[in-house]
Amino acid sequence: MITVEINKEAMTEKLKNNIIDDGFAEVVLLGKDDPLRLSSGEELSPFSVAYKCWGTLNDDKTNAIMICHALTGDQYARGENPITGKEGWWPKLIGPGLAVDTDKYFVICPNVLGSCSGSSGPKEINPKTGEAYGLDFPVITIADMVGSQVKLIDHLGIDKLFSVIGGSMGGMQVMHWAVSHKERVRTAIPIASTWRHSAQNIAFHEVGRQAIMADPNWHGGRYFETELRPHAGLSVARMAAHITYMSEGSLMAKFGRNLQDREKLTFGFDADFQVESYLRHQGISFVDRFDANSYLYITRAMDYYDISAEFDGSLRRAFENTPVKFCIMSFTSDWLYTTEESREIVRALNAVGAQVSFVEIEMDKGHDSFLLDCPDMFKIVSGFLKAEAQLSGIK
Amino acid sequence: MITVEINKEAMTEKLKNNIIDDGFAEVVLLGKDDPLRLSSGEELSPFSVAYKCWGTLNDDKTNAIMICHALTGDQYARGENPITGKEGWWPKLIGPGLAVDTDKYFVICPNVLGSCSGSSGPKEINPKTGEAYGLDFPVITIADMVGSQVKLIDHLGIDKLFSVIGGSMGGMQVMHWAVSHKERVRTAIPIASTWRHSAQNIAFHEVGRQAIMADPNWHGGRYFETELRPHAGLSVARMAAHITYMSEGSLMAKFGRNLQDREKLTFGFDADFQVESYLRHQGISFVDRFDANSYLYITRAMDYYDISAEFDGSLRRAFENTPVKFCIMSFTSDWLYTTEESREIVRALNAVGAQVSFVEIEMDKGHDSFLLDCPDMFKIVSGFLKAEAQLSGIK
Repeated sequence: MITVEINKEAMTEKLKNNIIDDGFAEVVLLGKDDPLRLSSGEELSPFSVAYKCWGTLNDDKTNAIMICHALTGDQYARGENPITGKEGWWPKLIGPGLAVDTDKYFVICPNVLGSCSGSSGPKEINPKTGEAYGLDFPVITIADMVGSQVKLIDHLGIDKLFSVIGGSMGGMQVMHWAVSHKERVRTAIPIASTWRHSAQNIAFHEVGRQAIMADPNWHGGRYFETELRPHAGLSVARMAAHITYMSEGSLMAKFGRNLQDREKLTFGFDADFQVESYLRHQGISFVDRFDANSYLYITRAMDYYDISAEFDGSLRRAFENTPVKFCIMSFTSDWLYTTEESREIVRALNAVGAQVSFVEIEMDKGHDSFLLDCPDMFKIVSGFLKAEAQLSGIK
Repeated sequence: MITVEINKEAMTEKLKNNIIDDGFAEVVLLGKDDPLRLSSGEELSPFSVAYKCWGTLNDDKTNAIMICHALTGDQYARGENPITGKEGWWPKLIGPGLAVDTDKYFVICPNVLGSCSGSSGPKEINPKTGEAYGLDFPVITIADMVGSQVKLIDHLGIDKLFSVIGGSMGGMQVMHWAVSHKERVRTAIPIASTWRHSAQNIAFHEVGRQAIMADPNWHGGRYFETELRPHAGLSVARMAAHITYMSEGSLMAKFGRNLQDREKLTFGFDADFQVESYLRHQGISFVDRFDANSYLYITRAMDYYDISAEFDGSLRRAFENTPVKFCIMSFTSDWLYTTEESREIVRALNAVGAQVSFVEIEMDKGHDSFLLDCPDMFKIVSGFLKAEAQLSGIK
């Protein structure tokens, strides 16, 4: 990774001229004179944030939308991801004329702290030692990810975000923005998300972490000192997680008990079934694009997530006097972050008289629905943002 | 393991005198002159079956009940397990005066083929080579497990079982008895089970197998030639599986987000949460009592399970003209083998005019409910067996 310091004036000029529109993300070094104080009490100074932007920031700087990515996501939400060569992960939501209209809004998508696409994380160089952090990277929280994003909008000279939008762990960041930085957010759109990680959520993550740490190639987190990588463990972690992203129905519809390139059972331990072959592929292809230590750090941040914790466990108190307008969506077949969890947020918001609209979308693809072609979701985001843009005079 | 050949007369004498009532299981060597033909086409000859009995076989030999165990179960369904020193796994269902009344019935519980408590499996000695089987053990199916049990009752001189009872994979064996050996079974009680392994079921098992095979100590299945065991991989497999045995609600009720022996988050990768500590314990304690290769074989057998496969996918045809009376139970919170899957069996049985009673039991403990203190389940089994005993003149 190359960290570059960006001259604010030059940056503003670039933004005005809308030239940050393709290719690699910008990487900005933040917190040099103003450390990021983490939930753990530790400080990060300096730290880098890699991010992509689309669209143009208006003169009032009132049209900025922050897109927050999920566990294994990155800043390449739309356009080609220059690292993988694949299309970004939310191409049908964000773009010219789409729900998050880049002709109208200035859209920012940062890589989260602790991840591995350019923002500070365990695989990046610790500026204090000149070596990779590994497990010396401090354990971070969702609040810390958002803390780094706050410093990013400070750096970009944006006082208030028009909206913060994200699914899954992205939705957790949205919730933290809305609760802990409520004066800096106009609207919040958490999708397929929750207000705290449940025991089952923690349990699945713990299986993944144990799979990684059980791999001898993990090498106590210092695999970057060797030629080997804990690919086997990371692959198993991804396989276990991937099951939770799909519904039983979608797995059955997609694969059923169909056999993989064979007429009958082989009575062996090869991938006889399509679903086995698919899962193995998910595991193997994942290790090429993701860092095992980042997987540990980010799952940990998610497990630590409980938006009510700072409010004596009262979700209602977390939302008291909120000026933020919420648009919350869940999916019928999502068993990882269920509709009931979204409803709990909605009930707490209603109890304090907050503005909230909520839709449970009928879709059978499980948790991953938010990443798929979901016209209902696109329409709801589009309508909600348009109504608010009209009120705010954003054209 | 020591395989012993049992003299039939001596055995009958022992049974009559009801002296096989404690301590280690009997182990019988079967199929010497009459090989067990497996689903794969291979043959096992000879093979051993370890089993426990309780109660006394009546003179008509009409009061025998077969208990089928689940994936990681064994023949020690009641009384002390002499290997672990712990109580058997169904102590409140089976015993004097209980639902499966050992004062009234002769109860047999065999260790399944492929397992590791004395029946032939990958850790046992291949009589043809004098070495442990390892992956040379043939891949077996639920039908093969039942095939070995058929040979066991032949050996015991029992023509027809009064009942076959089992939960989870035990229920799959019950289904196979009822479909493929219907003339030898009077009643069948499958609990918390299914008629075929779903894509999601297969997916979870594949994660477990990959975790084991990713462990370098697995050594291509030949770890018994080394001092090492694939404990890390087997432990991860068990952890992943264990989550599926509990409901989200029961995990939340039991652990919630409670911390383990600490006041606050430690910002590290130790087990901060009770649920993590519990899962790790489940993994670690499992490896002492279970063989990694057996885990591969038995999960494979479960994945291959589809009771309709031999009937062109028609569950209804599988049950045509069945003389067996069914009593089927499911649990509201079981998301591994759901009530809907039991209902599919019930609907097919009703369609062919079979005798079937079905109860969905309200219990919040998930799939593991069948192993827990469940008075409703005990009452239903008791009532069903009593009614049939009265019809059959069993006192």
